[in-house]
Amino acid sequence: MEKILQMTLLYDFYGELLTERQKSVFELYYLNDLSLNEISEEYNITRQAVRDMLKRTEKLLLRFEAKLLLVERFLSQKETVNKAVDILAGLKSTEEISKVLDMLLEIGGS
Amino acid sequence: MEKILQMTLLYDFYGELLTERQKSVFELYYLNDLSLNEISEEYNITRQAVRDMLKRTEKLLLRFEAKLLLVERFLSQKETVNKAVDILAGLKSTEEISKVLDMLLEIGGS
Repeated sequence: MEKILQMTLLYDFYGELLTERQKSVFELYYLNDLSLNEISEEYNITRQAVRDMLKRTEKLLLRFEAKLLLVERFLSQKETVNKAVDILAGLKSTEEISKVLDMLLEIGGS
Repeated sequence: MEKILQMTLLYDFYGELLTERQKSVFELYYLNDLSLNEISEEYNITRQAVRDMLKRTEKLLLRFEAKLLLVERFLSQKETVNKAVDILAGLKSTEEISKVLDMLLEIGGS
């Protein structure tokens, strides 16, 4: 998986376990696409300090995932839901089938 | 929800974020049903120390849930999956329907 995608997915799941400062720097870099230089000016710290902080945050997120596996389970569940959706969508449409399709989309199909 | 059920559910989700010591004491009390006295003898600490440790662990688990809401989401998803299963089970059984039923049970119906 591409690193930016992987990191934003990990952040979706574990972001709330980070400190406010870790969250801000992470968001500026990964979500708002600021450069290390821009962030270092914003916070009045060196570019290297920003880089170190991001590295620590990335490691933390990966450690949470190693323990809880939420992203892995989420992706595997999404895959199962999408397969189920495909099968149902191929059946003759009835009120019941379309209700179940709605429910599946609600729990994570795409 | 009953406290023991709530705590074991929280532990299922967040147990891996606890220390080894917190895990052992929690498991002896909640999963193996030992008394505070029995645990205090096992660890050679006072009954009060065991109680304090359990309280701290319970608070930690509740704090993880307040941040991540995994148990809440899990229970609500389980409910949705079960409703979908009920609807599908009421339809004329076909190979496709039974395949989707299997998939739903795999992602958490009961």
